[in-house]
Amino acid sequence: MRTLYHYPMHPGCRAVRLCFAEKKLKLREIVIDPWNPDEKFQSLSAEDVPPILTDLTKSGSVTIVGTQTLCEYADESSGRNPLMPGERHDRAEVRRLTTWFGQRFDHEVNALILPEKLETVFIGGTPDPDALREGRAALRDHMSYMTWLLSIRDGLAGPAFTLADIMASAHLSCLDYLGEVSWREFPAVKEWYQTIKSRPSFRPLLADRLPGIRPPQHYGDLDF
Amino acid sequence: MRTLYHYPMHPGCRAVRLCFAEKKLKLREIVIDPWNPDEKFQSLSAEDVPPILTDLTKSGSVTIVGTQTLCEYADESSGRNPLMPGERHDRAEVRRLTTWFGQRFDHEVNALILPEKLETVFIGGTPDPDALREGRAALRDHMSYMTWLLSIRDGLAGPAFTLADIMASAHLSCLDYLGEVSWREFPAVKEWYQTIKSRPSFRPLLADRLPGIRPPQHYGDLDF
Repeated sequence: MRTLYHYPMHPGCRAVRLCFAEKKLKLREIVIDPWNPDEKFQSLSAEDVPPILTDLTKSGSVTIVGTQTLCEYADESSGRNPLMPGERHDRAEVRRLTTWFGQRFDHEVNALILPEKLETVFIGGTPDPDALREGRAALRDHMSYMTWLLSIRDGLAGPAFTLADIMASAHLSCLDYLGEVSWREFPAVKEWYQTIKSRPSFRPLLADRLPGIRPPQHYGDLDF
Repeated sequence: MRTLYHYPMHPGCRAVRLCFAEKKLKLREIVIDPWNPDEKFQSLSAEDVPPILTDLTKSGSVTIVGTQTLCEYADESSGRNPLMPGERHDRAEVRRLTTWFGQRFDHEVNALILPEKLETVFIGGTPDPDALREGRAALRDHMSYMTWLLSIRDGLAGPAFTLADIMASAHLSCLDYLGEVSWREFPAVKEWYQTIKSRPSFRPLLADRLPGIRPPQHYGDLDF
């Protein structure tokens, strides 16, 4: 049995949940509190941050950690619904964009906006306006870059639905929950996100609710 | 023809060179100046940092960027000498450690030590003693972690030679060039590194020389 330790508003955790859902692989989900992880969770790995997965294999129990590693692990756990294209240079472009969103976007946008807004509610204090301003400016740059990518080819990383779509949409979905995405200004990105959001794998994410933070009305709306 | 744009003292670039050498795949190498990259290099990709590879495929010229993406691309470019194990949970452990060294070690150790020492020579000024102290303390922690890994199993990520060995040794080799590694204190890591260093793929790295910075005598010595 696979068990995923995750936090609902962690973009990487969302990406991993999407991957397993796309692959139609069952997952027991345990929500952890990133500000106060319990001992059981901390004992799982030297990397005590979610997402962490435990799985039973022929060789016994294994612990898999790290967002991108887990996404590829999910993809390799079943041949059904591949999340990577067949050609190696296409896979390279998918991996480049998966890293782009999982690291660069995460560092430049989500690492500035998400903790500021979440910690205000769960820990107290007020958000740092400079961090928010910087994160929001970077978000606009990334949305422009996505618009450009979507203008030069069919799809974000190519015509197939891949890990790149998953990583990008997982990151944007957290910001969208907090009302941070100006969809109207980036119609091509909105159109792309609408298609992703309509996939059955996305439903559990749209049903996530944080105590004390209500998402904007359009968050769960497929026709926003 | 594959062309790699790289910088000899960049750990990620070294990892990519090792991968292609292990796979016996030819590579035209162009050294770029990271402090003053030329226009041709900057025009290759939105990510204007090395390593960047251009390759000719059936679909035309492609540009591949990013250390880990390029390592997997190299591995997938030929079936000879696989750098990933056959089981998916073993691959996950290799990817975890590749990310561990490529990102965490890089951030906690090399990002503090390498620029401080290199920029002092190539740009001027004096190294920030706090950055060096912090980087060196983190290096000791990572060497202890490697010692622990090597004590619980055969090899760093398992018995096979993999991308994890390549990423870890590429990072350590840059520090070793600058005389930053206390091999005597970590005999298990030294033994592991000696084996890696003896591989033919490592020879070009041991022959690298930076103007104005001479490596310690043991740097190129296989029996250090």
